[in-house]
Amino acid sequence: MKILKTYLKLFIIVSLFIVSKNIQAQQISNEEINAKIDSILPLLTLEEKVAMCHAQSKFSTPGVGRLGIPEVWMSDGPHGVRGEINWDDWGYAGWTNDYITAFPALTCLASTFNPDLAKAYGISVGEEARYRKKDILLGPGVNIYRTPLNGRNFEYMGEDPFLASTMVVPYIHGVQQNGVAACVKHYALNNQELWRGHINVEVSDRALYEIYLPAFKAAVEEGNVWSIMGAYNQFRGQHTTHNEMLMNKILKEDWAFDGVVVSDWGSTHNTKEAALYGLDMEMGTGTDGLTTSTQNAYDYYYLANPFLKMLKEGEIEEAVLDDKVSRILRLMYRTNMSVNRPLGRINNQEHLDVARKIASEGIVLLKNENSFFPINPNKEITIAVIGENATKSLTIGGGSSELKAKNEISPLEGLKNRYKKATIIHAKGYASGPSQYARVVEPTDDLEQLKKEAIEAASKADVVLFFGGLNKNHLQDCEGGDRQSFGLPFGQDELIDEILKVNANTGVILVSGNAVEMPWIHNVNALMQTWYLGSEAGNAMADVISGDVNPSGKLPFSFPKKLTDNAAHSFGENSYPGDSITQYYKEDILVGYRWHDTKKIKPLFAFGEGLSYTNFEISKVATAKKAYTENEQITISATVSNTGDFNGSEVVQVYVGKSKSKVERAVKELKGFQKVMVKKGESETVEISFNVKNLAFYDETISDWNLEKGGYVIYVGNASNHISKEIKISIQ
Amino acid sequence: MKILKTYLKLFIIVSLFIVSKNIQAQQISNEEINAKIDSILPLLTLEEKVAMCHAQSKFSTPGVGRLGIPEVWMSDGPHGVRGEINWDDWGYAGWTNDYITAFPALTCLASTFNPDLAKAYGISVGEEARYRKKDILLGPGVNIYRTPLNGRNFEYMGEDPFLASTMVVPYIHGVQQNGVAACVKHYALNNQELWRGHINVEVSDRALYEIYLPAFKAAVEEGNVWSIMGAYNQFRGQHTTHNEMLMNKILKEDWAFDGVVVSDWGSTHNTKEAALYGLDMEMGTGTDGLTTSTQNAYDYYYLANPFLKMLKEGEIEEAVLDDKVSRILRLMYRTNMSVNRPLGRINNQEHLDVARKIASEGIVLLKNENSFFPINPNKEITIAVIGENATKSLTIGGGSSELKAKNEISPLEGLKNRYKKATIIHAKGYASGPSQYARVVEPTDDLEQLKKEAIEAASKADVVLFFGGLNKNHLQDCEGGDRQSFGLPFGQDELIDEILKVNANTGVILVSGNAVEMPWIHNVNALMQTWYLGSEAGNAMADVISGDVNPSGKLPFSFPKKLTDNAAHSFGENSYPGDSITQYYKEDILVGYRWHDTKKIKPLFAFGEGLSYTNFEISKVATAKKAYTENEQITISATVSNTGDFNGSEVVQVYVGKSKSKVERAVKELKGFQKVMVKKGESETVEISFNVKNLAFYDETISDWNLEKGGYVIYVGNASNHISKEIKISIQ
Repeated sequence: MKILKTYLKLFIIVSLFIVSKNIQAQQISNEEINAKIDSILPLLTLEEKVAMCHAQSKFSTPGVGRLGIPEVWMSDGPHGVRGEINWDDWGYAGWTNDYITAFPALTCLASTFNPDLAKAYGISVGEEARYRKKDILLGPGVNIYRTPLNGRNFEYMGEDPFLASTMVVPYIHGVQQNGVAACVKHYALNNQELWRGHINVEVSDRALYEIYLPAFKAAVEEGNVWSIMGAYNQFRGQHTTHNEMLMNKILKEDWAFDGVVVSDWGSTHNTKEAALYGLDMEMGTGTDGLTTSTQNAYDYYYLANPFLKMLKEGEIEEAVLDDKVSRILRLMYRTNMSVNRPLGRINNQEHLDVARKIASEGIVLLKNENSFFPINPNKEITIAVIGENATKSLTIGGGSSELKAKNEISPLEGLKNRYKKATIIHAKGYASGPSQYARVVEPTDDLEQLKKEAIEAASKADVVLFFGGLNKNHLQDCEGGDRQSFGLPFGQDELIDEILKVNANTGVILVSGNAVEMPWIHNVNALMQTWYLGSEAGNAMADVISGDVNPSGKLPFSFPKKLTDNAAHSFGENSYPGDSITQYYKEDILVGYRWHDTKKIKPLFAFGEGLSYTNFEISKVATAKKAYTENEQITISATVSNTGDFNGSEVVQVYVGKSKSKVERAVKELKGFQKVMVKKGESETVEISFNVKNLAFYDETISDWNLEKGGYVIYVGNASNHISKEIKISIQ
Repeated sequence: MKILKTYLKLFIIVSLFIVSKNIQAQQISNEEINAKIDSILPLLTLEEKVAMCHAQSKFSTPGVGRLGIPEVWMSDGPHGVRGEINWDDWGYAGWTNDYITAFPALTCLASTFNPDLAKAYGISVGEEARYRKKDILLGPGVNIYRTPLNGRNFEYMGEDPFLASTMVVPYIHGVQQNGVAACVKHYALNNQELWRGHINVEVSDRALYEIYLPAFKAAVEEGNVWSIMGAYNQFRGQHTTHNEMLMNKILKEDWAFDGVVVSDWGSTHNTKEAALYGLDMEMGTGTDGLTTSTQNAYDYYYLANPFLKMLKEGEIEEAVLDDKVSRILRLMYRTNMSVNRPLGRINNQEHLDVARKIASEGIVLLKNENSFFPINPNKEITIAVIGENATKSLTIGGGSSELKAKNEISPLEGLKNRYKKATIIHAKGYASGPSQYARVVEPTDDLEQLKKEAIEAASKADVVLFFGGLNKNHLQDCEGGDRQSFGLPFGQDELIDEILKVNANTGVILVSGNAVEMPWIHNVNALMQTWYLGSEAGNAMADVISGDVNPSGKLPFSFPKKLTDNAAHSFGENSYPGDSITQYYKEDILVGYRWHDTKKIKPLFAFGEGLSYTNFEISKVATAKKAYTENEQITISATVSNTGDFNGSEVVQVYVGKSKSKVERAVKELKGFQKVMVKKGESETVEISFNVKNLAFYDETISDWNLEKGGYVIYVGNASNHISKEIKISIQ
């Protein structure tokens, strides 16, 4: 068992990042920045200022060369720095210096429930962005997981606003200490890809403030994020990218955001709204074909010539423009005009280590009968590795988060690296067909032949590992479209059934960024939910499968048994996907486990759930006192005992509920968690604190947070559906 | 007259650059750099080190990403930062952020005889390179002007080693204070473009050391240039880019050059020679078609896999590689790894002002009968502007120095800007035909019609200004080929004759980087030699034509009456171009005016010649004493009196000769000069100093410099053929 070694390694990695202050860009104070802005702004012409507010190419905005104000260069994220794109079309530029470290998808990061790893992730990807000369990394994404069909869930951090908030803040800090701006996205309510360009979201203020905005708020107020990206969709009839309520009132006024609002690529629709409702930098507006020898397509952007015209005619005040340019300059003083910006690094071993650590710690063990896992790597057994995802590149595809990974270890390679004594036989088993993202022409598969080979392999093996799930093709886990059904695609369910007929000793490893239906779940010995794990995918899987790493990941979203058990799909014809025009968030605040708990609809696997190779007991759960006032903090202590045979980590989760309320409340909501490593036979005590104020709900009758007095219940456990202890407290 | 205003402006510009220390990159000491190199070098693998020694794309070399060592990005110069080129072919990348300030060609800079302007030029173009994120600017060029047919003379600084040396040093200082490396080129003996890839130059040691190397030596020893570019040609049977004598003995041993030797693009021919004879960074080797899905063409570079193989097999010692990488790292610590590198600027008014100032100050007035110039801009006269160069873009073409100028004011536009009261009529007159460099398809001209229109225009005008000369097409002033005849091309001589028949009041303005034959010179009133003047070409010409600027440029090379009067063309069948295999520099040290003076062959216009609108007298020429010893300095004082009607500048030139010598000496050689502005009716005293040691000749019998004792003559004048005073001195 290499668990101890692995934890030591983690400690070293995290320490390395935390202590090496010298790699951080020297930041100057906001006062100094504002003074610089005040002195430079009057030097700029109206035209120069307008030019700074929109793209000059697919991923850059112009500077003011005569004054030495640099251009701003961006790159898609958030899982790594995307390959170089052509100046003015979406083709890859064909450079060879843009192979990078592919980090695990953000769903995986969320599953670690480990904010230190979010920091390490941010530092690492920020270093890669800096080395690649990017000023803004377009990520992280924190849209709430509402329906398992959303093609882009894999880029986000799950269904719980507290979890996403807790993980996004250190990620941002990590990126930005490199002198690279993070760009939290997609603000807001971009919870589906289907019809994303126009779908109008109707949601209550309460759900907005309690569910959909907290992670953005944390990014701004705690993460001090330097930029934020508007979304494609509409909210209450107005595009979110230039939405008076979201941008002006909430983001810039209430949260005092002082950074740059960047549009999503093509999410801008109106000059006056863009000007007045908070957009600062317009990117990717579709102006294809408008560039000729005499005109530049970018002049046709909403915030280009049409904006200039309105400014010149007095229809929009210059102060509006100056505010945008001040924000852009502020971002630049923090990034490409900052002093002693570090140089960044790329493809270094530390980044691979971070990627592998996050990947292995984010893998969630959901079922493990007969101690199927870990599989001893020192035995001379035959392992049948079946399934397309055992070999398919999963950093390719998926939309803008697609990466040119310098290395990508497939699960098959990872197993071969680790299982030197075993005989590994491999069969593809099923095929997803040609992908729009494929970089080389792949042969057309004979599906019957694939199945036959898989069954033959399974029948000869001691152990079957089925690597299935989704992939990054269109209508799978991929930007720009949603999944069309909840079940596994490409005939996997049938294939699993066939395999089980010849070999019952089968474990399923699912790769996806979404929950899927599992009709075979009761027939397999084991289930491991993995994510898009990046460069070290196969090694990280082998780490967990072999027991080198004891799994400690927890689900960041619920797996319903069937699609209609999910809240967004529970309202008949008012359910997702709806009429293509308006999407009503009928479930209101009851998203994810809040829905399952409150409506007493048992999920297949619950939020926060995840097994270990060892056993943990949570005991001695206590609070210092039972009665609190508004400005106090509540601290819960608990002892975690490792009563099994392996060292391992457990996530202690604290939920709070209030049964008597003037509004409908979820049974419980996550308010705190802490991951703790406990050696076998030992115990560790954790303390988890949160402010009493965090128990408030958003009261639409007063348009403000309302901390109700009275009794609350604190639930402490290691999953939303596995509570070890309830403590009653009261707020006076 | 705006002369005073213009001079004040110059003073302000130069002061601005000289006093603003804060825009200079903070340099660390060589000791600190060496310590850093010593600590980082052992961390690099053999493969990483080899990779740093050759290109990864057309204009970049890889860094070591895992250690945060950046890539090195280069751009062609020296007249501005070239447009962005594709990753792996020679096409322009189609970016729109690469329009820049086009500075005058280096021949023009040389003609100013003003080192302060060389500094301003270097600072300005360095700022533009920095803004464009370039680490090395591929320039300046200091190859000696040997034959007027050399297609690339326009990029160099004339025929005199002292002039080129004096001008190159401040240019380099200016570029490098931006944290951008200059790359002095093409080292060495690349004095023709014809057969440049293989021509073998045979030249005496004496001519090498006295004529062809001094500007490179000054660049290294006084300019502290951080990189130098090898040339295409051979010297004594070995390619100059990896030439044992030039690179190892002279450059790196004798001159102690500690920077990077960069190949010219495709000038590398042999792995072992490249490894052992001084090449550090191989660029542009032709490997077209070798990149496939499984191999990278750059691996086939001489300093790539073949080099790695020899290192691994012990055929080349790793110390050889370490020396190269140390040099590359040193360059990086001075540029892209330096602390607080300034951000650069581009297309700012100051850069345009510098470009215009250099352009107007570099224009050389060679004939001005009947006070043809200046032409009063306040008169209601009709001016016929005739000639293709009145409107042709001359920043386009010419080879690697081609630029995407943000602005390029043509002569016609410049005149229209300045002559508001005059009637300006324009006729193209002649046409050079389609250019390989044209960015748009131009209509085919009816040459007879053009001529007819020109004569008609001339006949109607009070004044005719003929804008002719050469252009940047292939076989004109253009890299990759030499001119094929000494005369003006495209029927210009005949056209000038025809014009003179209808209007004798004709002045000729020649645009070129080379001397041309002028059969019509005695028939025209005036001749102005201009150069490729860049963004402000037309405005600068109008400055001089109108008298806003009083011309003060001096020829940096001789204009022979006929081609065979030029030394390289004076040796019958041994003359240029020769047998295509070997070029013998038969004229030895007698290049340019040294030839004309010594052989008593009067040029049409002499080195150092150039008129003013005013008259200057040089008097009171004196030295403090007449007898000197080896380690002393000689200081010549002289009074310059402006006896004419305009404020203006004069260049006092000091030449020295030695009649009795053990070797053949040129009659005189330039040893010092100073430009001085003198108001009309006033006098200024100048002092010009040089070391006695500078009077030595390179003595091949001792392979060293030899300072002969005995008598020398100091010649002081305002042109090589216009000496006001001779002073005899002696060296003891």
